[in-house]
Amino acid sequence: MSKMPIYLPQLLFLAIFLFYSVGKECGATPLKNLESRESSKTCGYQACSKPSQNKLNIHLIPHTHDDVGWLKTVDQYYWGGRPLIAKAGVQYILDSVIHELLEDPNRRFIYVETAYLWKWWSYQSDRVKTDVRRLIDEGRLEIISGAWSMNDEAVTHYQSIIDQFTWGFRRLNDTFGSCARPHVGWQIDPFGHSREQASLFAQMGFDGLFFGRLDYQDKRNRMDKKTAEMIWKGSDSLGNKADLFTSVLFNTYSPPPGFCFDILCADEPIIDDPQSPDYNVDRRVAQLLVFAETQQSFYRTNNIIMTMGDDFNYQSAELWYKNLDKLIRYANERHGSTVNVFYSTPSCYLKAVNEQALSWPTKSDDFFPYASDPHTYWSGYYSSRPTIKFYERMGNNYLQVSKQLSALTNISTSETYLNPYREAMGVLQHHDAITGTEKQQVAQDYARILSEAMKGGEQILSDALGSLISTRNQRRSRDGADVHFYTCYQLNISSCPHTEENNNFVLTLYNPQSRVVSTFVRIPVTGNSYVVRDFTGASIVTQIIPIPPEVLAIPGRESSAINELVFRARNVPAFGYQAYYVTKSNKNIERVRNESFTEATIQNEFFNVSITDDGSTCALRTIRSGVTNMRIAQSFHYYESSQGNNEEFENRSSGAYIFRPKNATPKNLTNVGSHQIYTGPLVQEIHMKINEWISQIVRLYTGENYIEYDWLVGPIPVDDKIGKEIITRYSSNLATGNVFYTDSNGREMLRREKNFRPTWALQLAEPVAGNYYPITAKITIKDRINKLRISVLNDRAQGGTSLNEGQVELMLHRRILNDDAFGVGEALNEIAYGKGLVVRGRHQIVTGTNLDRSSSILMEKQMAWNLLNPPCILVSPAGRRTFEEWRNHHRMQGSGLTKQLPPNVRILTLEPWKDGGLLFRLEHMFEIGEDTRYSHPVEINIKDLFLPFTVTNARETTLGGNQWLNESERLRWVSESNEVHRERENVRVVDTGLIDDANEVINVLLHPMEIRTFLIEISI
Amino acid sequence: MSKMPIYLPQLLFLAIFLFYSVGKECGATPLKNLESRESSKTCGYQACSKPSQNKLNIHLIPHTHDDVGWLKTVDQYYWGGRPLIAKAGVQYILDSVIHELLEDPNRRFIYVETAYLWKWWSYQSDRVKTDVRRLIDEGRLEIISGAWSMNDEAVTHYQSIIDQFTWGFRRLNDTFGSCARPHVGWQIDPFGHSREQASLFAQMGFDGLFFGRLDYQDKRNRMDKKTAEMIWKGSDSLGNKADLFTSVLFNTYSPPPGFCFDILCADEPIIDDPQSPDYNVDRRVAQLLVFAETQQSFYRTNNIIMTMGDDFNYQSAELWYKNLDKLIRYANERHGSTVNVFYSTPSCYLKAVNEQALSWPTKSDDFFPYASDPHTYWSGYYSSRPTIKFYERMGNNYLQVSKQLSALTNISTSETYLNPYREAMGVLQHHDAITGTEKQQVAQDYARILSEAMKGGEQILSDALGSLISTRNQRRSRDGADVHFYTCYQLNISSCPHTEENNNFVLTLYNPQSRVVSTFVRIPVTGNSYVVRDFTGASIVTQIIPIPPEVLAIPGRESSAINELVFRARNVPAFGYQAYYVTKSNKNIERVRNESFTEATIQNEFFNVSITDDGSTCALRTIRSGVTNMRIAQSFHYYESSQGNNEEFENRSSGAYIFRPKNATPKNLTNVGSHQIYTGPLVQEIHMKINEWISQIVRLYTGENYIEYDWLVGPIPVDDKIGKEIITRYSSNLATGNVFYTDSNGREMLRREKNFRPTWALQLAEPVAGNYYPITAKITIKDRINKLRISVLNDRAQGGTSLNEGQVELMLHRRILNDDAFGVGEALNEIAYGKGLVVRGRHQIVTGTNLDRSSSILMEKQMAWNLLNPPCILVSPAGRRTFEEWRNHHRMQGSGLTKQLPPNVRILTLEPWKDGGLLFRLEHMFEIGEDTRYSHPVEINIKDLFLPFTVTNARETTLGGNQWLNESERLRWVSESNEVHRERENVRVVDTGLIDDANEVINVLLHPMEIRTFLIEISI
Repeated sequence: MSKMPIYLPQLLFLAIFLFYSVGKECGATPLKNLESRESSKTCGYQACSKPSQNKLNIHLIPHTHDDVGWLKTVDQYYWGGRPLIAKAGVQYILDSVIHELLEDPNRRFIYVETAYLWKWWSYQSDRVKTDVRRLIDEGRLEIISGAWSMNDEAVTHYQSIIDQFTWGFRRLNDTFGSCARPHVGWQIDPFGHSREQASLFAQMGFDGLFFGRLDYQDKRNRMDKKTAEMIWKGSDSLGNKADLFTSVLFNTYSPPPGFCFDILCADEPIIDDPQSPDYNVDRRVAQLLVFAETQQSFYRTNNIIMTMGDDFNYQSAELWYKNLDKLIRYANERHGSTVNVFYSTPSCYLKAVNEQALSWPTKSDDFFPYASDPHTYWSGYYSSRPTIKFYERMGNNYLQVSKQLSALTNISTSETYLNPYREAMGVLQHHDAITGTEKQQVAQDYARILSEAMKGGEQILSDALGSLISTRNQRRSRDGADVHFYTCYQLNISSCPHTEENNNFVLTLYNPQSRVVSTFVRIPVTGNSYVVRDFTGASIVTQIIPIPPEVLAIPGRESSAINELVFRARNVPAFGYQAYYVTKSNKNIERVRNESFTEATIQNEFFNVSITDDGSTCALRTIRSGVTNMRIAQSFHYYESSQGNNEEFENRSSGAYIFRPKNATPKNLTNVGSHQIYTGPLVQEIHMKINEWISQIVRLYTGENYIEYDWLVGPIPVDDKIGKEIITRYSSNLATGNVFYTDSNGREMLRREKNFRPTWALQLAEPVAGNYYPITAKITIKDRINKLRISVLNDRAQGGTSLNEGQVELMLHRRILNDDAFGVGEALNEIAYGKGLVVRGRHQIVTGTNLDRSSSILMEKQMAWNLLNPPCILVSPAGRRTFEEWRNHHRMQGSGLTKQLPPNVRILTLEPWKDGGLLFRLEHMFEIGEDTRYSHPVEINIKDLFLPFTVTNARETTLGGNQWLNESERLRWVSESNEVHRERENVRVVDTGLIDDANEVINVLLHPMEIRTFLIEISI
Repeated sequence: MSKMPIYLPQLLFLAIFLFYSVGKECGATPLKNLESRESSKTCGYQACSKPSQNKLNIHLIPHTHDDVGWLKTVDQYYWGGRPLIAKAGVQYILDSVIHELLEDPNRRFIYVETAYLWKWWSYQSDRVKTDVRRLIDEGRLEIISGAWSMNDEAVTHYQSIIDQFTWGFRRLNDTFGSCARPHVGWQIDPFGHSREQASLFAQMGFDGLFFGRLDYQDKRNRMDKKTAEMIWKGSDSLGNKADLFTSVLFNTYSPPPGFCFDILCADEPIIDDPQSPDYNVDRRVAQLLVFAETQQSFYRTNNIIMTMGDDFNYQSAELWYKNLDKLIRYANERHGSTVNVFYSTPSCYLKAVNEQALSWPTKSDDFFPYASDPHTYWSGYYSSRPTIKFYERMGNNYLQVSKQLSALTNISTSETYLNPYREAMGVLQHHDAITGTEKQQVAQDYARILSEAMKGGEQILSDALGSLISTRNQRRSRDGADVHFYTCYQLNISSCPHTEENNNFVLTLYNPQSRVVSTFVRIPVTGNSYVVRDFTGASIVTQIIPIPPEVLAIPGRESSAINELVFRARNVPAFGYQAYYVTKSNKNIERVRNESFTEATIQNEFFNVSITDDGSTCALRTIRSGVTNMRIAQSFHYYESSQGNNEEFENRSSGAYIFRPKNATPKNLTNVGSHQIYTGPLVQEIHMKINEWISQIVRLYTGENYIEYDWLVGPIPVDDKIGKEIITRYSSNLATGNVFYTDSNGREMLRREKNFRPTWALQLAEPVAGNYYPITAKITIKDRINKLRISVLNDRAQGGTSLNEGQVELMLHRRILNDDAFGVGEALNEIAYGKGLVVRGRHQIVTGTNLDRSSSILMEKQMAWNLLNPPCILVSPAGRRTFEEWRNHHRMQGSGLTKQLPPNVRILTLEPWKDGGLLFRLEHMFEIGEDTRYSHPVEINIKDLFLPFTVTNARETTLGGNQWLNESERLRWVSESNEVHRERENVRVVDTGLIDDANEVINVLLHPMEIRTFLIEISI
């Protein structure tokens, strides 16, 4: 293991933090009090009923599935608003469930979505709060999963998944104490399941995972072979630590047919009055037992789980409980010698299964794509609503920035604004939010929620940066405080009023990555000439690029910018900022520009990009990688959406969930385009107009070893009444066979093979949709022989695949005229400003090899990181202040870290936590075997890692931050196979207890792919 | 007042009752303990919130309207069964309302239908029972109306209305005590309102009546004139005693539009989170107040009532209360200077209105027919489902018999069987039961309920008669006990297995009338010759009449009878029985029979009936009344039902509720019939076949001054896809103008005038349906000049009218192919045995004069009584026992009364009550001015009225038997008009306190139309 060079601290940064104060006044000892409340210990597994040894144990699980927005907004669902859309009000669910639980100590309930629980909690009286705490303490109300929402697993990023679990856990911990700590994952509704989610769950200390949806063939196969319960191996790198017992629910998450007693259902109640002509106890009990026996025949133990609930069930909980009470009573009365029916929870079921000490099959791949019938592949939502998918990523980045800056500065506003922002991002992770499978009015509300939260984030940024740039020490400087830091949220469409309206302004870049970053800055401007000075006063190289007319014409774009000003920001400090002073110049600089001609080329040190433009069509012909014999072409195509009545399999429509192209071969576009080429010292660009509704910029930055594509798609024309789903296709000369690789939630990579599933013999009736996988961050193809590889990185999640040798395709945008009949009840036909939605996004292509010496993996990881957590650009109007005046009163650069971390390590999380402490996560970015240099353990001393403070104490928790790691003890499961896990290198690990300030070091050892989570105490 | 002759007691009856035992053992003093439970006195008006003097008081009335069967059976509604038909479960309503009331002492609820309350009560724990009693004691749960069901007012008979209220009250009293005594009538849903119901309510001690449905023109008129609240004068004869303050609800019984918060509704909840984008407090409160002000502008006081509930609302009561709580809170917070919004009850509203001491308009007619728009007259249900209407009447008669025999004999089985029977009859009174406006499956269940209850009644009859006929005194005789008394429930279709299968049998007639009755007995037999001996052994005159082939062919009739044996039962004792020994004879008696010929006539002392039969048609030409110059023709016709989509007024269909003929003139039938004439010593009959689906017997009994019609209609053909509604029309030469008279619930008569309403200027777009009125028992026309009158009595309720001079028409049967869109969701197309339903019924026509000397009124009343409470015929197989053997071991005659009552008085009720006491009602049968001889007060000594026991104590109660009369104090109201009520003759009235056994007499004075109710103690 090589020692990494220490990054030189920015010395002038030091003084800033002299007045940084850790909240020690109250004598809080956060590391001793993970939970704010001591709970009794009759909860958890201790509260489980003992199953019968020789009977069929039927675990009835009363539950409600409360989507955090879908057909209605979160708020509408909470209050029960818009009842014409759906009669669903979560306030009533929690009210009435609590009442019913109090009626009878045998009754159980589980609750999942902390977003709702927390909102509800805020309205409760002390009496109700006491009742609820007691119910939780006694295990009668059990919190499972416990995240803010039940996140999607395909299009979410692990950074946000971890965040939203952590925040849900935090609320639960603070409010209810350890008895509210979830023991299992409960992903009953998401449309497919990622291996990374399983890995994260394992790291959170979960003992198991339950879910409802998996490929119908897979399910049939697992039922036949009794492999519906398994040990899911979540990570090759993490080994046992990422293993998770996983149980496929028998009936998704619904009750047995005929046994939905909810007010929203229409099944017969139990009528136990023998005088009633509708008396039905005998018949109903018999029906239940027949179902139970059938179910049991597909599982290995004498325990089965019956999910007694459904979407927004239990608004009138009495209906459920009164009838279940009777069902239980009569079933046991009449068949008690063979069955044992009782209220239970998933954890209790898990415990019962675990106690049987069987050995279990394993699984190492994931559960994508999900198909519910031969023609219904749920791979459309990988790309649905591309703008909300991007907005969520933006939201995440600003949240990370807000957290970091709050932790680094301890500004007073962070509490006010950070929590709503955390909550908003939790909401966005919901499996009908970021997925794009919600109704239009709900999508707009998600955007509103995020937008309002981001305003809070903006306030944090402004306050924190104001504090950081202040040059006066004694008190908070007006110099900093009176500087406004404006965010530019529409840079993706080259719009920013603050850079457009001001002639003198300061750009402050905050870098949320724990490494020094050099990046090209592009800002929309109205002029043709600008002078940019860095913090040293040096005027740096700039370039002006016209904004393409297609971008100028984007509906709703309110900008007078016609150009982008480009410069390179070098070495922006890790967790730090760097400012540039920009002045509009009167000098009219001649743009270097080649007008269109038939064959045109741009090139830099690494690539050569040519296009053909014969006057009627404009196509990207060839990209040649300078260092290899690699050729790549790029082209746009579209699939026509299937349009059917959804009544038979063959009549399924493409829709928000479902991708179902009419033909396996996508249509080519009738190109009517043209192109412009712009070259200069920093960047060379081809601006291509493909047709009336697709255009693209292909870009090569000087010195950068990647090609960048800014694609612009829309409004997709549907005058022909045909829905269309637009793809971009990168075609290379790599011999890839049928194999490609896709990321799992932006973290580990999974091998994919066309027309193939690792665990069953696939029958594929949908050759395109059935090969689509979620591409959250990266898709890679590799040449089988020469180790060449191409990776495409995206700025948001998209569906993607490789259908032909050497090809990668990614779906950019979809406009569909039919609903796919999975409940959303609307066609995915996004309209903005009276037209079909226009979407702009970015791909970056990295080429390279897998050979050790020239591995491009680190670069891919850093580029992906840069797409995920790019430096934020903040604009401060400088007014009449000259550069010198500005520099005299404001710090123009500063870092949060004292040293550079090794390239294979990053700080995943830094945020204020409780009682002045911080939550801190370090992550190893490499998988085992991925790279010879980086796929190794690395040790970091975190004591002096941060410039503004010293870590005085660190205690490790599980991934979710809600349990001390050394107190976490997961259930043990035995694998059927005799496989031997790669054992981790055995090294000392800092994990528990207080370490006093006298210690010189607090070393944290990280193994490949490891994330370690600490609550830390600090002193300045 | 003339003294009536005393009926000679049947001396041999005396001994029977030696062992009659009154339940005195427990020292019960029933007359002191009307309620089994002492209640606190914070209930009732004491519990009302004080309204504000100078604000608009908005009384929010949380309520649920729980139909005792309609779309679902009573049982299905209770349990929530058949949720696909309607998601309605009363068990959940009561459960959840009780919970919500306990949550907040400000909340109120009213409950109405004791059928459900009682069923629910039987399942409750002691804890819940204690809670409910407390809620009632504190007025938070208020019982209003309180009958077993919310009875219909058009087609019900007052005997059954009183019974079902009395039984509801009894359960309430026994269970909850005086705080559960209803103060107001709540008839929110019935489709029109009878004056008799108002009169009965007043006599029950009610202070007011609320209802929802009245003619749309009437409502508009009343709103315009602010006369929607009035003093309804329920009876000309009873004066103030029958006055009832009546309030027309503003919005039927629904909440203001937009304010239905129920789980079954889809209105917006109150969202009071200012952060919510759907925050709506300001808007919602404003909406409510706008509605409230509009409503207030139509009423006279500063109090308005808002009915916050609807059909089967409050299954999840929390939704209602949580939102109403907020509405109240915010409305008062923000507009408290002008409005006062609060939970209230109808009684509290009534009290607030009463305290204003205004004077009120009066009304003396009724609210029939009900029209909801110009083409929608709810006069179809007066005739819908004629068989259930008849079955209910049969049920009532057997119930009265069961009660009387239980009271007279004190058999042990009565408790077991009487209560379910009382309950069943209560259910049948419901406004979607006897009305025929329920779904088919529900109609069948009503029949099942009644049929099972009647089996219990049969057991009572058998046990009681067994006890009565026993000749051994020391112990219950096996002679009586081993005699089976079979009822013949299908005599109306000439079917009775017991008379058909036995060669020797005894017929026992029990006479439930409190007068001696002579009646013609008709029993179905298989033979041609029978010998009938009365209790003296005398063989009496008989006649054999063939059963018409149309009756033999009735689908489902399982009988081998081909003839009816007719004889006259003379002087069957009042409340007594008389037996006849019948022997099948081998003698083949030649039937007196005239074969058909063109003009045929039958006649008796009073009438001459001729028909024309020309071989292709058979029509009833002329009836001549012997004593007058009166001529009557009878004919059948039918209306074609309107068939529309119900979307516009003009497109309303005829249906279960609505009568809407396509044309104002009914269609004539194409007669294809024939006739037979049968004459003999007892009866002369014309058997007429009108066409393939209508036939009729016209009958004159020797010595009887009426004409009897047994009509048989069905299956109504609908092959032409046209619904048909069949009428019979009696056309006379009387000069009646536009005026006719119809009974109100079988009691007082109301004047009707074609195309006219007494209280507003009628606009009539439906000339037929808008002139239809409910004929529960009698319709009368009178000649304007010569005082001649014709009354038609029916055996069940029917719609009827007089559209032309001298005519009466009655609707017999309806078969309709469309729904009328008022919720039942089925066409009224009754199918039995695979064919359209066949119905048989009876009319009796009485002719006479209004002249004092020859008044036919007494006879009409007695005949109506005989149709309502005819002697029951019970069959006991005699086996090999000869008449002498039978007579030696069994009493063949007995009376319950010691004396004959005056002809203008009858015993309305005699039934076992509590602690060995009896409930007893005496009724004056005449209205003031109706008859010079009988319309006068009459006094009865009840002490020695009954043969089996002496009345030792009598204390008068209100009509419903739930409050001592002298403790009843109704609210006082002032009429606007200065009218002076006819004051009752001032006489001593026995009403209160114990009267010791030494008293010789207990005199009860009855004024015209008065009903007096007593709880009596007896000794044998």
